[in-house]
Amino acid sequence: METLLVNNILQMKEINKNWKKSDTIVGLVPTMGALHNGHASLIKKAKEMCNKVVVSIFVNPIQFGPNEDYDKYPRSIEKDKILCNELGVDVIFSPTPIEMYGENVILSNNELSFVCPPYSIVDCMCGKSRPGHFDGVATVVTKLFNIVKPDYAFFGQKDAQQLFIIKKFVKDLNMDVKIIPCPIIRDVDGLALSSRNTYLSENERKIALTIPKSLKEIKNLYLSGIIDTGILFDTAISILDKNIELDYLEFRDFNTFKKVDKVKENTLVAIAAKVGKTRLIDNEIL
Amino acid sequence: METLLVNNILQMKEINKNWKKSDTIVGLVPTMGALHNGHASLIKKAKEMCNKVVVSIFVNPIQFGPNEDYDKYPRSIEKDKILCNELGVDVIFSPTPIEMYGENVILSNNELSFVCPPYSIVDCMCGKSRPGHFDGVATVVTKLFNIVKPDYAFFGQKDAQQLFIIKKFVKDLNMDVKIIPCPIIRDVDGLALSSRNTYLSENERKIALTIPKSLKEIKNLYLSGIIDTGILFDTAISILDKNIELDYLEFRDFNTFKKVDKVKENTLVAIAAKVGKTRLIDNEIL
Repeated sequence: METLLVNNILQMKEINKNWKKSDTIVGLVPTMGALHNGHASLIKKAKEMCNKVVVSIFVNPIQFGPNEDYDKYPRSIEKDKILCNELGVDVIFSPTPIEMYGENVILSNNELSFVCPPYSIVDCMCGKSRPGHFDGVATVVTKLFNIVKPDYAFFGQKDAQQLFIIKKFVKDLNMDVKIIPCPIIRDVDGLALSSRNTYLSENERKIALTIPKSLKEIKNLYLSGIIDTGILFDTAISILDKNIELDYLEFRDFNTFKKVDKVKENTLVAIAAKVGKTRLIDNEIL
Repeated sequence: METLLVNNILQMKEINKNWKKSDTIVGLVPTMGALHNGHASLIKKAKEMCNKVVVSIFVNPIQFGPNEDYDKYPRSIEKDKILCNELGVDVIFSPTPIEMYGENVILSNNELSFVCPPYSIVDCMCGKSRPGHFDGVATVVTKLFNIVKPDYAFFGQKDAQQLFIIKKFVKDLNMDVKIIPCPIIRDVDGLALSSRNTYLSENERKIALTIPKSLKEIKNLYLSGIIDTGILFDTAISILDKNIELDYLEFRDFNTFKKVDKVKENTLVAIAAKVGKTRLIDNEIL
């Protein structure tokens, strides 16, 4: 069966209602489109675990800051449809911003309701550089969950902070959906797949490669017994290309999201950095 | 069948899952207990419209300010059970704060996820005097909706701002529940029923009665053709007892919640005032 393209919220709800008449397990892969192999791995996992798979494609305006790349964020719905079709996706849910947020609405806390995850996990790392970003993510994900009503939702571990935050508000607000984290997928050269990689020039890509290289070195040092974050941090810095503008390199317990001084199993090593105008993130869970 | 008392979230979810196997229409009446005839009217309406009725009884700590009456808020679970039984309520859902928010959690935006309705309808009227109140209400109501998964939820029109806010975030976040507003129920002397009325001394109650009296006079003047809010405001003030500490008396369009200069059909006239230490609210929709 060909993938069905749905733009309308009520239609999506109706489809779910029909599925639910027969105990169907529904999976949702929320995306902003410009699908790559990272997304494909999420979709494949969803196909394994669910009877019906919905891929949402929505470049969500409320998670972009005023000086960020909302307008130029890559959009490739025709290519995305082909990939979804190949992978056996049942429905692409791709609403317009007006369908999601209404007409003539200023997309701010003044006119719209938001889901706000706890400050302690929002006001740090990516949230520090991108104020309001995770409120926007939490809000759109909540909306998608209420529209698609998935049993499982699939998120990439590349967005480690996002993943932690989503698990947290799902628990806090007693939502029924189970969050399935999926491993980072890398290109052959080691760069973590991201729709934003298309922004990189050839030279910038070379520079960007020192990000996964520094993470790999941290992992190697950890495996050889070095657990002091000071030493690990300095090593990573020495590997990162001088033209990289580091935003953060942090060591956090992936169960609690608290900073750690000594790394151990399940420590998240997360990095965000700008290469030229492109902001990239990557991480390793030790 | 006797009303079942459920304290546990998972048990409540299981009960709903069983109901939903057979297309049951579920109604929720969210309350803070200390049930009175106002609540009874909501329950009766729910019984009319639904196959199964859940009354939640939960004095929600996160909607009380630090200097408010959380600790002394009236609690009467035994009496409440008898009333629910008489009215044919299927389930009382009455979790503890720990069951709802977890153990050793500081109940603040720093550690918990909140649902935050738009500032424009939160930072005024009751929300102005009670910062954080409506975020707390929106959050607990969202949790209750996710736990009980009602088709209909019943709210009293006495809390007009709350009602408007709940409708707004339900729409904004694409929740499926339908919000059913129910009219204010008054005592024989005209005072709007409220669990907080038990705080009033005999003399305070006399003073409080000038609140509904002033609203009634506004309605009479409106029906006689006076639509200028300045005149209506002054008349109301002249009727209110001098010992009443007025918080606000506002005229708003009940469809948009915008202030109006000239009243018309569907104008909300809302009042909040302190009588002694007791904060009371009341309103009329013209």
